[in-house]
Amino acid sequence: MEPTPSTLFSGERIRVGYRLAGDEALAWQKAEVICLEQTIEAPYELIPEGELGQNIIGHIESFEPLDTGDFMAVISYAEEVTGFEIPQLLNTICGNSSLKPGIRVEAVEFPDHYLENFRGPRYGRQGLREMLGVADRPLLCTPLKPMGLSCRELADLAYQFALGGIDIIKDDHGLVDQPFSRFAERVELCTKAVRRANKETGKSCVYAPNVTGPAGVVMERARLAKRIGAGGLLVAPGLTGFDTMRRLADDDDIGLPIICHPAFLGGFVTSPESGISHSILFGKLVRLAGADATIFPNYGGRFSFSREACGGIASETARPMGRIKPIFPAPGGGMSLARIPEMREFYGNEVLFLIGGDLQNRGRDIVENCHLFHRLVSGAQK
Amino acid sequence: MEPTPSTLFSGERIRVGYRLAGDEALAWQKAEVICLEQTIEAPYELIPEGELGQNIIGHIESFEPLDTGDFMAVISYAEEVTGFEIPQLLNTICGNSSLKPGIRVEAVEFPDHYLENFRGPRYGRQGLREMLGVADRPLLCTPLKPMGLSCRELADLAYQFALGGIDIIKDDHGLVDQPFSRFAERVELCTKAVRRANKETGKSCVYAPNVTGPAGVVMERARLAKRIGAGGLLVAPGLTGFDTMRRLADDDDIGLPIICHPAFLGGFVTSPESGISHSILFGKLVRLAGADATIFPNYGGRFSFSREACGGIASETARPMGRIKPIFPAPGGGMSLARIPEMREFYGNEVLFLIGGDLQNRGRDIVENCHLFHRLVSGAQK
Repeated sequence: MEPTPSTLFSGERIRVGYRLAGDEALAWQKAEVICLEQTIEAPYELIPEGELGQNIIGHIESFEPLDTGDFMAVISYAEEVTGFEIPQLLNTICGNSSLKPGIRVEAVEFPDHYLENFRGPRYGRQGLREMLGVADRPLLCTPLKPMGLSCRELADLAYQFALGGIDIIKDDHGLVDQPFSRFAERVELCTKAVRRANKETGKSCVYAPNVTGPAGVVMERARLAKRIGAGGLLVAPGLTGFDTMRRLADDDDIGLPIICHPAFLGGFVTSPESGISHSILFGKLVRLAGADATIFPNYGGRFSFSREACGGIASETARPMGRIKPIFPAPGGGMSLARIPEMREFYGNEVLFLIGGDLQNRGRDIVENCHLFHRLVSGAQK
Repeated sequence: MEPTPSTLFSGERIRVGYRLAGDEALAWQKAEVICLEQTIEAPYELIPEGELGQNIIGHIESFEPLDTGDFMAVISYAEEVTGFEIPQLLNTICGNSSLKPGIRVEAVEFPDHYLENFRGPRYGRQGLREMLGVADRPLLCTPLKPMGLSCRELADLAYQFALGGIDIIKDDHGLVDQPFSRFAERVELCTKAVRRANKETGKSCVYAPNVTGPAGVVMERARLAKRIGAGGLLVAPGLTGFDTMRRLADDDDIGLPIICHPAFLGGFVTSPESGISHSILFGKLVRLAGADATIFPNYGGRFSFSREACGGIASETARPMGRIKPIFPAPGGGMSLARIPEMREFYGNEVLFLIGGDLQNRGRDIVENCHLFHRLVSGAQK
């Protein structure tokens, strides 16, 4: 006997808010097309008959004008359409519609029941705080850079950063396994350097190597990093696919916190009319896919994210989301120590500050710069 | 002894053409920033000393005004920076720069020597023609849809398409492993259906199931498809990561042709000022990453790719590229049979026509519609 719609569909639906450009008639037409494009990808005439077809296609739940002159359509999809898999979930949200201008994903809401299919971040804010032994101040993070330094030189930097009290030291995301910086050697030397510094300071600084790499190799690099004793992992889901990050986070043998890097995801956010909103992409989707901290370019730096976009990401990292843990927003991108007091005020305590070149590029020595970073973050005057 | 730059760097460099918005001073400044952003990701002061640093950073090879008022900067990168890995290659081309508006990748040139690190498509145009037994006409492709049909119904469709002379029948890219369409059952039934039709027609129609899926599962699905006897694979690298497609193509045990679907890649091309050009993304990069055919929305359909963009993709699929084989452009996206004569004229013979709903959505029966598709493609009048 073929299964019937009532046995196939739970009735739970995922809701996606699309901002649609155009006048009311055009925007409504876009909404109707999205209902098909994101599901059966075929004309109305081909909707499967009866209850099944009605379950499968998208439903326009609401349609409202916005102050901007655009329209907001909330469209729902049966949870079964997503196959309970991250790639097909992303495909359902905006796979084909990403190819059409004037459609921007501004909201995604999951039933709590649906979220039980995903573990999300292993640590989240609280787990990361416990691991690092940091009760309530913002976390301090810095990358190992520049590319071109030998593994020994990077390890020496890592040692100084850890001595100076940085909480998380991550590889620059361009460091993979190049002739001038072999993955295994780098992880070996940097892990040792951070361990040595931790013995001296009594702190719990974590080194997070970049495991972004070829499809068959990411998990191997992560396992190697774990074996060597690294305390976290950096991954760029735009380069590896979102689900590779989820797989890293879910792997109980690896079990390390995941720092998410935004490289090669910019396409979704650079157009204000198309793609996915900053908060959904860098706040919600990476959180669902297992990131414990989400790096994004801070406002006013060398990128062009607005203050509002950054605030939206930060809010989204902690919005209630079933049993999926809140994660750290990690603003970076050419931030200087001088910006810390203002960022502190803007982001509050639940933030991971990512300061790069400025820690290496000042008069004082690196340990001293890290101490200054600490004092600024703790709110004490310089 | 530490290796020296002359032992570390071959001197071969990848060249990337960036279209930069802004006046000359701003565009030049952007070009200078890209040289650092895409490599050391740090200020000038941190460029490693001497020859090493000069090898590592991007070089502005040329800088010219364009008729559009923008500027074109060609920037080269040492091949070693890419680690000879697809993810880091994409990261080098525009990882962080994808996050900045007003920077668009318009050209990428690889030294032939560099291309030897990649196998590219296993079949390419000639291999696919040999496999399908089609000497020189365009190839005919159609998706199994709509989502919601049972595997038995999809298999019945596949049988009729194959009887009608379709060359490649692919899963709709939204079909993964849902409760209403289980992967294993679908592949089993559709493979059998196509085989049965092939016996009747004496033709070599190929069924290509969609293996887009979770990170640890894509290869399993592909191996299962191969074991069952499927003749090709569909994959959406925007959802799985580009390198997963490369891995599928490189796997000698799987060894099937790869059809590339553009879902979730739209962010890169919807803004005319940012991201990556259509021809580089859908023509060149997917070809490097192993696609034998590249699906993209045809001009004048329900998407908004221009005629020029589509022509650019088609040209790029066959541009000389070391030993990397030319591949098939596969325009689709709501195309009707009525468009075939014009598309035939535009694309010539080296094309894979993807017609979806229109083969199911007409008066005659499906086999008859496929015959009409055939006649239109072969240039005969209806």
